[in-house]
Amino acid sequence: MIQSRVHVCDLREHVGRTVTVCGWVSALRLQGKMQFVIVRDGTGPVQVTHKRDGGPLEAQLQALTPESAIKITGRVVDAPQVKLGGLELVPEAVEVLNPAATPLPIDVHTGIEHRLDWRFLDVRRRPAAQLMFAVQTTLEQGMREYAYAQGATEMHTPKLMGTASESGAEVFKLVYFGRSAYLAQSPQFYKQMAISAGVEKVFEIGPVFRAEPSFTSRHATEFTGVDVELAWIDGVEDVMAFEEHILAYAIAKVADAHGEAVREQFDVEITVPTTPFPRITMTEAHDILRKGGWDPEGIKEDLDPEGERSINAHIQQATGHEFVFITHYPVGTRPFYHMRPADDPSVTLSFDLLWKGLEVTTGAQREHRYDVLLKQAAEKGMSPEPMQDYLNAFRYGCPPHGGLGLGLGRVLMAMLGLESIREATFLFRGPNRLTP
Amino acid sequence: MIQSRVHVCDLREHVGRTVTVCGWVSALRLQGKMQFVIVRDGTGPVQVTHKRDGGPLEAQLQALTPESAIKITGRVVDAPQVKLGGLELVPEAVEVLNPAATPLPIDVHTGIEHRLDWRFLDVRRRPAAQLMFAVQTTLEQGMREYAYAQGATEMHTPKLMGTASESGAEVFKLVYFGRSAYLAQSPQFYKQMAISAGVEKVFEIGPVFRAEPSFTSRHATEFTGVDVELAWIDGVEDVMAFEEHILAYAIAKVADAHGEAVREQFDVEITVPTTPFPRITMTEAHDILRKGGWDPEGIKEDLDPEGERSINAHIQQATGHEFVFITHYPVGTRPFYHMRPADDPSVTLSFDLLWKGLEVTTGAQREHRYDVLLKQAAEKGMSPEPMQDYLNAFRYGCPPHGGLGLGLGRVLMAMLGLESIREATFLFRGPNRLTP
Repeated sequence: MIQSRVHVCDLREHVGRTVTVCGWVSALRLQGKMQFVIVRDGTGPVQVTHKRDGGPLEAQLQALTPESAIKITGRVVDAPQVKLGGLELVPEAVEVLNPAATPLPIDVHTGIEHRLDWRFLDVRRRPAAQLMFAVQTTLEQGMREYAYAQGATEMHTPKLMGTASESGAEVFKLVYFGRSAYLAQSPQFYKQMAISAGVEKVFEIGPVFRAEPSFTSRHATEFTGVDVELAWIDGVEDVMAFEEHILAYAIAKVADAHGEAVREQFDVEITVPTTPFPRITMTEAHDILRKGGWDPEGIKEDLDPEGERSINAHIQQATGHEFVFITHYPVGTRPFYHMRPADDPSVTLSFDLLWKGLEVTTGAQREHRYDVLLKQAAEKGMSPEPMQDYLNAFRYGCPPHGGLGLGLGRVLMAMLGLESIREATFLFRGPNRLTP
Repeated sequence: MIQSRVHVCDLREHVGRTVTVCGWVSALRLQGKMQFVIVRDGTGPVQVTHKRDGGPLEAQLQALTPESAIKITGRVVDAPQVKLGGLELVPEAVEVLNPAATPLPIDVHTGIEHRLDWRFLDVRRRPAAQLMFAVQTTLEQGMREYAYAQGATEMHTPKLMGTASESGAEVFKLVYFGRSAYLAQSPQFYKQMAISAGVEKVFEIGPVFRAEPSFTSRHATEFTGVDVELAWIDGVEDVMAFEEHILAYAIAKVADAHGEAVREQFDVEITVPTTPFPRITMTEAHDILRKGGWDPEGIKEDLDPEGERSINAHIQQATGHEFVFITHYPVGTRPFYHMRPADDPSVTLSFDLLWKGLEVTTGAQREHRYDVLLKQAAEKGMSPEPMQDYLNAFRYGCPPHGGLGLGLGRVLMAMLGLESIREATFLFRGPNRLTP
């Protein structure tokens, strides 16, 4: 890497020495006698202080433009009067590695859609956006550490499918050597095949695709899914236990690494959740919500976003916990492969997990008995032929299993209090957005 | 998880106790007086020994079919005469959780294509295939540990693009809300945008898509790419140094965790490579190969698979090293965004990495100067309009950078001596294969 480069956060250790800083021009104050340049790298800003002397360096500094990528070599000087860390860099040489055109296409007042058009500048210039990706990295690292420690195997399932998965609706179709292929809506069928392949705990983080014309703050046509599938479970409770532990572990890791920075940048306190998380059935959730006047017609089987926010708030008030599992979703709201309890075939052994009013996970025990699965598919009006490869996985000794799918962007939204999944994604994809 | 379940590998600690084993029926030997059932879980096989007594358990064991998923409870008995670990399980109860139909659709003689049709059974029944995925998990874990330690940020770049990436050839096209979208051939453009967004070290493991009608043992239409991009580099050497260190670290981790099992299952020794890896220029590689009679017409600019195998073998003989970087690829063999050295514009600051005769990586320093990039694109006959979003990333202060893309399946092929990338993939995708 660039010789003798020092990150801004480490400059204090180099007082009195000549070092090189690589970063972007954050601000320029070019005064009559002095030139001040604020240079920023990923670790913070530093002030470059140059006394005009009519030399070539003065001319170079004068020609700088905001956001240019520069390499600046100078002496680190202790300067208590300087607000930025009580330090300044007295420059000896500057090299513009990539000049920025003027004016910049966005500024601090630019709205979200135009910011997304220039996402690289948007992310580069906002410390909160930089922090978002650091948090994402730590969160995934934490989830993987927990999953690996539980003996999980990292699988990469195909995103290209020969037939439309699950429902057949909301699937992207593509041309594949003269025939049609489809993009996987989730790794669901394939992670279940991995279970039947003898993988005891399947773990995958990867893209999922939804051809859904939704324009809400929490939907995207492509997003990152965290998928888990567990074999030899006793019931759906095992899946919920795995989820609350992996989240508690990963959130603790984020709080430890970034808690203070998150407080500063997002004005949010990361609370490490205690386990177990509260659990209520859908019937209980409906009762609580209807007492508060929700769904006055009494026709809703599922929770709408308002219901999710209300029930989550109610549980937080009652228990102090930010999370709640809603269990026993009615059969009508769940796909055919969710298992149903023997004593009540009107519901499923499934759950959603809500965090701060946002649905972040859907999970379930899966029906692994071939004959029952066929019957449930038929009840939903689904033909077995297009999914015979999937169904075959249950004909030759598939263990009981269950799993969950967690939206990484939604977890980050809830954790950092982001207003939109657009802020939790590097390059957002929606029905109207395929660029940059 | 299932109460009192014990993995087969841990049974020795439970001699004299009654435990539950969950797994698959590997073999049945039903004799006149005795019933022997070999049950296997992910950790190994155990013999279940039952003396016929005319009871219900005898009938249940008699009805078992190979590969059925069962839960069997019994007493662990020390039995030195039993080949499988000197142990046997004397059954008290058996429950068939998912019966396997008979006959099984594949057996040990089944060829690769038919095995892929029944991949879940293929993977479940072959310890080598199980090990393959354990090795993959450890390899990725090792690469992430190294990348995180270097300060890398995990990014998820979009697979859906508004315009065909890079060359425009070999890209899958899909219908996207009434217009066209394309599947990313690589995260190349987006990871460079992340560099321009101020991410110093980009790390991503995710799917890449190639609409290439290739039927070789090392091509797939969808595979898992490991992508790295590094900002503020001094030159392409920084990228090669990162790659040799991440590989050495991850391979050491695999050797440590699975070296003995790999020797047993694949008859392969995992050698932890020393750093630096050997480096030769393409010109040197050509000279060496042509002395051996390769490309007698003297027309090839690139290396063909035979050339890759020969040069890798030559270097291994000369240095004892399994890897070799080939550097300075001619401009004609590389994309427009590879940087060219100031003193020789006929070549690029790029490299391939070969391991045991197989190309596992392509990397380069990228051209980050907007005007030079435009010129190089024009020279390749490319129009700037469709890639203006990409080009914009170089107009507002993009630091010098370089990176690499590594094919996870190819690394596993080289490491384990697999004959085909089909064996290094859970569910292979090729021009003729979109199932299961």
